[in-house]
Amino acid sequence: MAKSPEEHPQKAFGWAARDPSGTLSPFHFSRRENGDEDVTVKILYCGVCHSDLHSVKNEWGITRYPIVPGHEIVGIVIQLGNNVKKFKMGDRVGVGVLVGSCKTCETCQQDLENYCPSMIFTYNSTSQDGTRTYGGYSDIVVVDQRYVLRIPDNLPSDAAAPLLCAGITVYSPMKYYGMTEPGKHLGVAGLGGLGHVAVKFGKAFGLKVTVISTSPNKEDEAINKLGADSFLVSTNPEKVQAALGTMDYIIDTVSAIHSLAPLLAMLKLNGKLITVGLPDKPLELPIFPLVMGRKLIGGSDIGGIKETQEMLDFCAKHNITADIELIQMDYINTAMKRLSKSDVKYRFVIDVANSLSQ
Amino acid sequence: MAKSPEEHPQKAFGWAARDPSGTLSPFHFSRRENGDEDVTVKILYCGVCHSDLHSVKNEWGITRYPIVPGHEIVGIVIQLGNNVKKFKMGDRVGVGVLVGSCKTCETCQQDLENYCPSMIFTYNSTSQDGTRTYGGYSDIVVVDQRYVLRIPDNLPSDAAAPLLCAGITVYSPMKYYGMTEPGKHLGVAGLGGLGHVAVKFGKAFGLKVTVISTSPNKEDEAINKLGADSFLVSTNPEKVQAALGTMDYIIDTVSAIHSLAPLLAMLKLNGKLITVGLPDKPLELPIFPLVMGRKLIGGSDIGGIKETQEMLDFCAKHNITADIELIQMDYINTAMKRLSKSDVKYRFVIDVANSLSQ
Repeated sequence: MAKSPEEHPQKAFGWAARDPSGTLSPFHFSRRENGDEDVTVKILYCGVCHSDLHSVKNEWGITRYPIVPGHEIVGIVIQLGNNVKKFKMGDRVGVGVLVGSCKTCETCQQDLENYCPSMIFTYNSTSQDGTRTYGGYSDIVVVDQRYVLRIPDNLPSDAAAPLLCAGITVYSPMKYYGMTEPGKHLGVAGLGGLGHVAVKFGKAFGLKVTVISTSPNKEDEAINKLGADSFLVSTNPEKVQAALGTMDYIIDTVSAIHSLAPLLAMLKLNGKLITVGLPDKPLELPIFPLVMGRKLIGGSDIGGIKETQEMLDFCAKHNITADIELIQMDYINTAMKRLSKSDVKYRFVIDVANSLSQ
Repeated sequence: MAKSPEEHPQKAFGWAARDPSGTLSPFHFSRRENGDEDVTVKILYCGVCHSDLHSVKNEWGITRYPIVPGHEIVGIVIQLGNNVKKFKMGDRVGVGVLVGSCKTCETCQQDLENYCPSMIFTYNSTSQDGTRTYGGYSDIVVVDQRYVLRIPDNLPSDAAAPLLCAGITVYSPMKYYGMTEPGKHLGVAGLGGLGHVAVKFGKAFGLKVTVISTSPNKEDEAINKLGADSFLVSTNPEKVQAALGTMDYIIDTVSAIHSLAPLLAMLKLNGKLITVGLPDKPLELPIFPLVMGRKLIGGSDIGGIKETQEMLDFCAKHNITADIELIQMDYINTAMKRLSKSDVKYRFVIDVANSLSQ
């Protein structure tokens, strides 16, 4: 039986939603004792992912209340377990979408903990001790060292936080599906938290990058700020026509129900359309373009811990961070409303340490 | 303007459909003069592909009548152009789905003539001289040597014929998508002309092969004759349940509208579902299993000439041929009716040379 969160020895404080209204408010709870393999992290910043919004409103039907969301965490190590060699006190570290897995299955052995059937999510999941996990909209978190990332020195804490989910979610498929050959043409469908980082990765890999968006007003920023080579309004038939058969890969970050046919049509022979969004209903898949153009549609879900570290190091090397709007904790309900309208460029990050007053 | 077929110097005779009833009957026409790069082939056998049925009935809406179908041709070289070095008189050769392409584009340079935008199909297509192409339900065919295959000595002419379309259509994606690692588990969805060859290829590659079919009565043959390791009736929920997450690859040969969700669910992490059938309407694609299991859906369309020769040589090495029912030319209308009900194990082949009486 799940223990009450109050039974843990470490006091914790954060903001939680209590019901499907999704409204967040102050919440006292506790964290487990720091075990031999654990580090306790004082949370500095936490990104606001679209999953947080889905979860607080129970839009996937699996939310257990109260829920403390947040899985784009950057903080400082303030406690070390006896067996922790990977970190020392005061290290700047990150915690992403997962905080546990079985460690023994084939996928864990291959550093693909993100596909382990026993993966433990950073929030709204059940820990190995049977208690619930609570996320990063809070003061501290206790995490097994295996699932803790090192934040490279030259990355700022606030703008690095979204890399822990948005970053790895687009980086991992770009690597796995081989979307990294310099000179190739990448389409990025959807310019939000994930898409804007995908543009930056694409440029760092030496790709030509075209943003595919429904919002014409994003063009200037996509090109002049994010560095995309071109911009395509997906509702403009002439623009779409001109783009047919021009792209080697497309990374599709759109979670809303949308048509795959125009995206497939923009791909060249052997083109790859990779979806990382999670529409809650099936999409229509036309088979002819797949067959006639030997194209594929693939998926990918975040990334393993080893690859997340690789991604952070890649970001450090190429000076890649998320474009963020830093907010105070008590702005979160307004931020969630704005997020639901995609009114953010491109990720809210909560200044947790400076605004989580009791 | 297209020339009338009667203007060519080589007299030819075959069976053609004249209208969307699809009924085939004797048809006199002509073939072009044998050019410097051409071979003229006396046709011995021609397989009856499901595309032939679609085409004679104009089910894809692109048929020009009269149409002489047939693109699984085996015959004997009876005439050689001046520049033909690849063949000599009397050679046993094959002609498949394509008889021409631009030869200069990127895909042609990569031996992927099957994806050349100017590809010329063996029938119902327009030749470079502006005349129409007619297929293998006929006595002779004139083909540029580049598109002519050598039939290895140990392959029988009749049972080799279907390899030229059905064979390469499943072989090419198995190679391209890497579905050839010994010990891996292949599902073959649909046990018809394509599926039964896919089973044989799977076994030759050292795979564990499971046939996925709606017809329980195919089980015995699938296992005891074709060599599949197991058989799964896709309408049996218990069988499907037991197969969840067990397959590395599935090759989907089903052309009817069908559900992708159970096939995706049978795949392991990183599993690949490759479709070579051509349903004429979009299928429903659930996104969650793609993302959560890093799975992909890909397509593939026949194969290039170089790879088709490789496939034939592979078949020779592993004694792979199609299981056929040999028919006379005047049985073709009955055969087409039976084919429309999948009543054939597993490919009709017309004994052209012995039954095409004028």
